[in-house]
Amino acid sequence: MSALEDVASDNTAGAHPTVLAAVVAANAGRATSYGDDELTRRAMALVRSRLGAAAAAPVLTGTAANVLSLELLVRPYEGVICASTAHIAVDECAAPERYLGVKLLTVEAPDGKLTPSLVADRVRDVGDPHRVQPRVISISQPTELGTVYSLDELHALGRVAHVHGLALHVDGARLPMAAAALGCSLREAAGAPDVDVLSFGGTKCGGLGAEAIVVFREGLADQLAFQRKQAMQLASKLRFVGAQLVALLEDDLWRELASTANAMASRIGEGLAAIPGVEIALPVETNAVFAQISPAARNELAKTYAFGTWDGGLARFMAAWDTTAAGVDAFVEEVRRAVSAARPAG
Amino acid sequence: MSALEDVASDNTAGAHPTVLAAVVAANAGRATSYGDDELTRRAMALVRSRLGAAAAAPVLTGTAANVLSLELLVRPYEGVICASTAHIAVDECAAPERYLGVKLLTVEAPDGKLTPSLVADRVRDVGDPHRVQPRVISISQPTELGTVYSLDELHALGRVAHVHGLALHVDGARLPMAAAALGCSLREAAGAPDVDVLSFGGTKCGGLGAEAIVVFREGLADQLAFQRKQAMQLASKLRFVGAQLVALLEDDLWRELASTANAMASRIGEGLAAIPGVEIALPVETNAVFAQISPAARNELAKTYAFGTWDGGLARFMAAWDTTAAGVDAFVEEVRRAVSAARPAG
Amino acid sequence: MSALEDVASDNTAGAHPTVLAAVVAANAGRATSYGDDELTRRAMALVRSRLGAAAAAPVLTGTAANVLSLELLVRPYEGVICASTAHIAVDECAAPERYLGVKLLTVEAPDGKLTPSLVADRVRDVGDPHRVQPRVISISQPTELGTVYSLDELHALGRVAHVHGLALHVDGARLPMAAAALGCSLREAAGAPDVDVLSFGGTKCGGLGAEAIVVFREGLADQLAFQRKQAMQLASKLRFVGAQLVALLEDDLWRELASTANAMASRIGEGLAAIPGVEIALPVETNAVFAQISPAARNELAKTYAFGTWDGGLARFMAAWDTTAAGVDAFVEEVRRAVSAARPAG
Amino acid sequence: MSALEDVASDNTAGAHPTVLAAVVAANAGRATSYGDDELTRRAMALVRSRLGAAAAAPVLTGTAANVLSLELLVRPYEGVICASTAHIAVDECAAPERYLGVKLLTVEAPDGKLTPSLVADRVRDVGDPHRVQPRVISISQPTELGTVYSLDELHALGRVAHVHGLALHVDGARLPMAAAALGCSLREAAGAPDVDVLSFGGTKCGGLGAEAIVVFREGLADQLAFQRKQAMQLASKLRFVGAQLVALLEDDLWRELASTANAMASRIGEGLAAIPGVEIALPVETNAVFAQISPAARNELAKTYAFGTWDGGLARFMAAWDTTAAGVDAFVEEVRRAVSAARPAG
Repeated sequence: MSALEDVASDNTAGAHPTVLAAVVAANAGRATSYGDDELTRRAMALVRSRLGAAAAAPVLTGTAANVLSLELLVRPYEGVICASTAHIAVDECAAPERYLGVKLLTVEAPDGKLTPSLVADRVRDVGDPHRVQPRVISISQPTELGTVYSLDELHALGRVAHVHGLALHVDGARLPMAAAALGCSLREAAGAPDVDVLSFGGTKCGGLGAEAIVVFREGLADQLAFQRKQAMQLASKLRFVGAQLVALLEDDLWRELASTANAMASRIGEGLAAIPGVEIALPVETNAVFAQISPAARNELAKTYAFGTWDGGLARFMAAWDTTAAGVDAFVEEVRRAVSAARPAG
Repeated sequence: MSALEDVASDNTAGAHPTVLAAVVAANAGRATSYGDDELTRRAMALVRSRLGAAAAAPVLTGTAANVLSLELLVRPYEGVICASTAHIAVDECAAPERYLGVKLLTVEAPDGKLTPSLVADRVRDVGDPHRVQPRVISISQPTELGTVYSLDELHALGRVAHVHGLALHVDGARLPMAAAALGCSLREAAGAPDVDVLSFGGTKCGGLGAEAIVVFREGLADQLAFQRKQAMQLASKLRFVGAQLVALLEDDLWRELASTANAMASRIGEGLAAIPGVEIALPVETNAVFAQISPAARNELAKTYAFGTWDGGLARFMAAWDTTAAGVDAFVEEVRRAVSAARPAG
Repeated sequence: MSALEDVASDNTAGAHPTVLAAVVAANAGRATSYGDDELTRRAMALVRSRLGAAAAAPVLTGTAANVLSLELLVRPYEGVICASTAHIAVDECAAPERYLGVKLLTVEAPDGKLTPSLVADRVRDVGDPHRVQPRVISISQPTELGTVYSLDELHALGRVAHVHGLALHVDGARLPMAAAALGCSLREAAGAPDVDVLSFGGTKCGGLGAEAIVVFREGLADQLAFQRKQAMQLASKLRFVGAQLVALLEDDLWRELASTANAMASRIGEGLAAIPGVEIALPVETNAVFAQISPAARNELAKTYAFGTWDGGLARFMAAWDTTAAGVDAFVEEVRRAVSAARPAG
Repeated sequence: MSALEDVASDNTAGAHPTVLAAVVAANAGRATSYGDDELTRRAMALVRSRLGAAAAAPVLTGTAANVLSLELLVRPYEGVICASTAHIAVDECAAPERYLGVKLLTVEAPDGKLTPSLVADRVRDVGDPHRVQPRVISISQPTELGTVYSLDELHALGRVAHVHGLALHVDGARLPMAAAALGCSLREAAGAPDVDVLSFGGTKCGGLGAEAIVVFREGLADQLAFQRKQAMQLASKLRFVGAQLVALLEDDLWRELASTANAMASRIGEGLAAIPGVEIALPVETNAVFAQISPAARNELAKTYAFGTWDGGLARFMAAWDTTAAGVDAFVEEVRRAVSAARPAG
């Protein structure tokens, strides 16, 4: 079977060989534990320099990166403005509520993107002690729907944040895909200098498991070492996380991998768009394709490919760094067959 | 420099080659994410069968294993009886208090081991709504001081738990070392059938980073999938954790590695005991050696070796799976030199 | 000035003389503290018998009653389905999120009332560990918009709860007003026997400050004494809360007071409905009147009367147990004047 | 039976008639809810001026006052140094751990009083991310054992706090008794200007239920309105709490009541000291008497008087504002009888 048999997620891909080799190399000899080792230091220096950030710390899951990033920005009686489709709102089993005690102030955003006016509308009840006080804008770059904020859009959100005294958090679990799509640096894609804290994801872009909290505002990370430990996120043999981040960042391997993933998603999108009965529901800007397909065709397709189904019956197909053109073509062919098989005779 | 240059911790050792090879092998092709893959399933089946447990789930840090284990056993108004030296009480930056809202009911235990009478004495205030209600006994096997509960001692704690309606949690971050020391199975060393939940540690015994929550009581783990996700501990590419646990458990590699670590600690202990001015402070039962050495000698030794200093000035030296006899001998020689150099002339 | 000068809230009214007299009488002599006194016991016996409940416990604020009620029903990874206008969602400064760690699964409900189909639609993601698991339906009776669930509607919600394995919580901060409106018992108005836990409010119905958690399901309240203490809600001189609840419940004083408040709101509603330029926006079923009035008229009216302004510019006028017909008539007259004064000349 | 039949607690006393009259007077007419009323403003102005404080806010229980005071001073990864006998450590059912997520760093203090050297010894592990960081000293004035910090002792604690960068919290649930004992102002007894936040208790000193958070450091209380609401402590009809505090503070009624309570405890202490077989275990400095009496005599006495029994079998007898000399004398006589009755014949 082809490498693309699973288009469910970019998490079903393994690690890129370069990343894996770095982990193997990191295993030689002893290294100080809990992050006080050469590799972790080098990784964090790289993250800081590539992102132009003040501080950085590796963590083990994307949810932890988001929750700990937010811990730097809110108190429990403050709220986080985010899209109703945000990962923090939908896919983290209430980890932000549980760990931080905060309320998420969700906003409907059809393409997953907040706008200055959506944000401004949600800034209300200021000073009313019965009501949660808006304090942070949290966006995903790219969004859960695969769309990307342009640099202008990021800057506009930065301005509205500034006007209302809000901080800006970016969930960058797939930030490399956004930067590749925009053709810009990771720093620009993250919304610097307007962003305050970024959750940077390496796992979905060729890692085994490597995320980082990236802090842009000076002073914000002073207690992060304690916060990370308390959040159960301080791995003892952290060199193995550091090694992955070094491998991804050092020679801009991330850009190559993200570009491939994006290109393969484009190829999926173009292939599917040509199939009668399939409608591409959202612009394919990164490595996700959302398509409207009839329930019968989805059932047929599910016999051979794993994929996600969103609210409203939208099918989600993801490409990853290891997706091949041949794999895409076989997949598209299979969708064509499934749609055809599902069509009522006559 | 020798492999033992660092006797600070068993966390400074890398992964055993077999474990690393398993991770590399696990990288081939796609695998379902979030633990629904063959390797993770195989690893958990192994954990369950080796431990005779009802359920098991991998997590990413020892602190998370402890906190999530306790979440299965206590409500916030209930308390956890533990030694004042317990990892949960001292070295987890109040993660149990933060995440669970519980109070730890600490008990002084000179050798790190709770006894039935220490526990029974701490069971008080039952029914008083102003006071936290004792609900769990949490022990470390081996303890933070390297000592080991015998099977009889474990059973006696099980009995006192039963009498007082308490659950029994075992922090087994180094359970392999305890089982190797006792010459028994992991299940026996964990205190089965008296134990309710075990934190099982693979990291310190040749892993890169692999811990597991092991649940012995039926029904207790019904919601663990949600609890683990909410606790920010659900890794997306979980196969890489599963691979490590399979490698450690399948052919009892853990016993070989733990036995080596224990034997090397014995060799350290014996070597140091022969040095005038060095006193072995606690029985060397697993892979830790606690020694009383003068502050001047400690300072001298610190120039060449990293090691821990405990409350009261006790030095802690740890052996790991990769510690060698030659390395131990060089270290002992260096201690002898340091003690001698620190001794006032005359 | 008239008693109605403030139509902002039923919380601006004092206590009914009978309630106050009961507090004064309660002051004689010593009484066991922390609720183990005659008056508190009598109050709780009355609450249980009037409501047909299994257990009851007094608390000090409505927010605490809601949060502690929910604590009996959910774990942090579970969610509470409620209207987006619910007090727990809007007016408790994220106390449920902070204290319980839960996510509120809000549903748009134009008149503030959940329906079986709104609930059923929100029961999704069952079994998905990334998603909060629906566990409780929480409704307000009456709602924040003054509307009342009929007994049939309550029962229908009970059925949908049963079908989906959900519990039913009722925020009855104004339950007396609902029971008076429905002409039924408190027990019926609370949705018994379908309701699991009720937050019962005495404060807004002639009390100084007296709320209670009322538990209908056996066994659910076994640990409530500890939960209440831990939630900072165990008053030392609890007899003074007990005295209020006895005064309100013993001779059904609550019904008299609630009926007056409801009747006076009706009078406001009828008076305002007759004024051109004022539109009654929601059925006046209890003691709240929501009216659409032009911003200019609202500004004019605000010079003499305090009142609330809801999202969308709706004005809220509340009656209380001490509102008088003369007060209402003067208020209506003043609204007529304000609307007239605000109308552009021509 | 006499008013002193219950010597268990100063919480079994009712409210002083002046306080009760103030509550009755407060009931006239309407008043803005949630603390934005004349009486509450006046009460808080009085608290600020009497204490020389920057800000103040009423709350409903002593536990809430403590927890919210600490919320102003610590983050979850920071610790609170307190005596092992502190109310926050023993009698609040882990409310600080639950609500704040903090660890209490308890210190053995035989007479309930922390000293600079006890504090300095507990300041350790600074900078170690595995360990909770000491941030606050919390003392009770008077202590749970009835002892009082002198002004010099308070100042010495302030100095040690300053040296180590710690804040100082005072649990003043019985602060009036301390001020009366010291013959000083409430401000001095609270340790101003060294204290950062005080929990001020009015309930035990003639109130029905009235506590306050008193903040000495500028800026610390900026968000307290939100924090109090979120902590379920914002009563709607707050004027009734305000009225109590005004009554207690305006004409220094607190000093009269506290002095009576202290004097009656002295009388108890002197009376008991003269009974063979009774030993006064701690200096009687405020309104508590701790006495060593044989178990048999305690059992005999328990037939007629309610009282507390501390760890180690110490009996605690409390006087309150309403304790009378005649009541004390009758109690002392009864103790004499009980001791005599319990003595083995021969």
